[in-house]
Amino acid sequence: MLILVVNSGSSSIKYKLMDMERETVLLSGLAERIGLHGSKVKQTSDTGELVLEQDLPDHKVAMEIVLRCITDPQYGAINDVSSIKAVGHRIVHGGENFKKSMVVTDELIQGLEEIADLAPLHTIPHIVTIKSCRELISHAPQVTVFDTAFHQTIPKYAHMYGVPYELYQKYKIRRYGFHGTSHKYVSGRAAEILGKPLNELKIVVCHLGNGSSITAVGNGASIDTSMGFTPLAGLPMGSRTGDMDPAVVPFIMEKENLNVNEINDLMNKKSGVLGVSGVSSDFRDLEEAAEKGHERAELALSMFAYSIIKYVGAYTAALGGLDLLVFTGGIGENSKDMRARVLKGLAYTGLEVDEENNNTRGKEIIISKPGSKITAMVVPTNEELMIARETKALV
Amino acid sequence: MLILVVNSGSSSIKYKLMDMERETVLLSGLAERIGLHGSKVKQTSDTGELVLEQDLPDHKVAMEIVLRCITDPQYGAINDVSSIKAVGHRIVHGGENFKKSMVVTDELIQGLEEIADLAPLHTIPHIVTIKSCRELISHAPQVTVFDTAFHQTIPKYAHMYGVPYELYQKYKIRRYGFHGTSHKYVSGRAAEILGKPLNELKIVVCHLGNGSSITAVGNGASIDTSMGFTPLAGLPMGSRTGDMDPAVVPFIMEKENLNVNEINDLMNKKSGVLGVSGVSSDFRDLEEAAEKGHERAELALSMFAYSIIKYVGAYTAALGGLDLLVFTGGIGENSKDMRARVLKGLAYTGLEVDEENNNTRGKEIIISKPGSKITAMVVPTNEELMIARETKALV
Repeated sequence: MLILVVNSGSSSIKYKLMDMERETVLLSGLAERIGLHGSKVKQTSDTGELVLEQDLPDHKVAMEIVLRCITDPQYGAINDVSSIKAVGHRIVHGGENFKKSMVVTDELIQGLEEIADLAPLHTIPHIVTIKSCRELISHAPQVTVFDTAFHQTIPKYAHMYGVPYELYQKYKIRRYGFHGTSHKYVSGRAAEILGKPLNELKIVVCHLGNGSSITAVGNGASIDTSMGFTPLAGLPMGSRTGDMDPAVVPFIMEKENLNVNEINDLMNKKSGVLGVSGVSSDFRDLEEAAEKGHERAELALSMFAYSIIKYVGAYTAALGGLDLLVFTGGIGENSKDMRARVLKGLAYTGLEVDEENNNTRGKEIIISKPGSKITAMVVPTNEELMIARETKALV
Repeated sequence: MLILVVNSGSSSIKYKLMDMERETVLLSGLAERIGLHGSKVKQTSDTGELVLEQDLPDHKVAMEIVLRCITDPQYGAINDVSSIKAVGHRIVHGGENFKKSMVVTDELIQGLEEIADLAPLHTIPHIVTIKSCRELISHAPQVTVFDTAFHQTIPKYAHMYGVPYELYQKYKIRRYGFHGTSHKYVSGRAAEILGKPLNELKIVVCHLGNGSSITAVGNGASIDTSMGFTPLAGLPMGSRTGDMDPAVVPFIMEKENLNVNEINDLMNKKSGVLGVSGVSSDFRDLEEAAEKGHERAELALSMFAYSIIKYVGAYTAALGGLDLLVFTGGIGENSKDMRARVLKGLAYTGLEVDEENNNTRGKEIIISKPGSKITAMVVPTNEELMIARETKALV
């Protein structure tokens, strides 16, 4: 059974064609700079790499070209789109109404349109892409997998903000959380590796990448997560502020004479470890700079690590204990140094690090010592596989 | 030795005249609605209550009237201001340069003027009041005791925000923390009660009142605190939001068409448990309403308790363990229900509550069982005494 996994962003479409009998990837590609100058599609499969420089004025045209690449006689993986049995879409924001993955219907599209306000830069391209697939691969059922769905189990006292209740009713301002597909996959896989039932474990998952979030998983469900109404909240990230006194926002706006768009731009694109270090939003660059003695790079790294340590502490309290701490995402999977900083800060819990095992990159491995009170683990995430699995299950 | 403790706010001056031989209060009073219609001074002493309805156009006039009340033949406590040996001022914001209590000099006043921008509503009245005291009680040395000073030991990785570093350099945007005088007094007093050296204890102090903050105290010094650049951050409070995704701020501004002053007003005066419950900013009202089944009052209380539990968890991680948990402030001292909610959430740590001891109000008492792994305690705060002590020590 072939499933096409589609992840459309504001100016891009990432895709993977997956064989779900063996859970393997047949090809993967990226249409980028959609609606911009210099747009193109890059695709990799066993037969090589295809780069197609082509005008992509909108997501509909992009989707057409993507399907042409997938069926390319030389670099494609299939002869005809009719081989695609279903399409799974990653949807960034499902609001409060989409609590699990769902098959696309007219009502679902209408539901997405109604909540587009919560994340317009993502939701509008999502809708265009879904509609295009309906036309172009009309035989294949489509499934939407929401980044927010896994967090819909967070209790009300943990997802509400201290703003006037009317603003929640009017605009649905509350914590949603993101990276849900990753947190769900990783917590489930970690329990498997440990060989214990997921619903008996207290787990904290640290998804650390360019965007980072930490989730408390109890009884197999998300009970709290660090991202909020938007993906700006929580840890300081590549270029996003993370948590801070909300009063800082109007203070900066007034002093720097910024409007709403400009402050959003500053908080999302010029802040985080990039803003603090002045070096880079890439943690590899920061680690290199910090090693050479760059003080602000070291400051950014230590702010990030300290923030993780505090969240793990907070979520241990929220869960009433901790059995399993899991690292995933680009930094979580690959940076032994960042993991070591965090684990050192948690030594007081009785968590003992296996230095040798921690000295690895990008593979499933237990990095705490056998007798450790809390098990620490690395589990590479696989959001596309999770989306394909949910799609397969629903069609 | 008589010391006058002065706490001037934007439209008020609270004061206490203290005898520092015996650490007793001779009289206390409040000049309120300064610069507004219906201003007056109320003063209480052993000889009764004095209420003086009098036009108070500014803090200078108010200070003159306060001194007249203190020396009132019938209701005052002294015959002449010359008996006042020193004045201790509570200063809300000391910025980065004032790291401890200091004797007032011309340079100090200039230093306050330079950082007035950080908390103009408080700092400007502080300066006027200090200058008035210089004129009116010129013989008495004055001391400034900063609400931020105790938190100046917070390490840089814990006090910096993920905003561009230039904004920190330009405007000193960072975490300052407040209630420092209270956290210092309470942590010191708690160690005394426990009979252990302060610098060997890992302490979390929960100052819970209309404004609330939680501080992690290690080696006798603040290492982190929940309030931030302003007193808006941290727990949801009487009418302040507390922490939330910073992206909520521009979102509300845009949707509700609010300017910088209006959003500050909304976040500081219409939010928190008042905004969530729609009932009151007073926790006594909320507890009463929640008991009668008011869902949003219960939601506000559970949000507050959950927030405290998460902070205690986070600061336990920051401290690398926890020996002593202390409650203070109006709610912390008086609400056995709120303490019980928090302690229940921390049961996983091995903290055992002494239900009977917890069933008390407003007095120093250990509320955990004798064998409990973590000691929990109530210590009524006494900021004025702390200010008077620091003043005495410096003059």
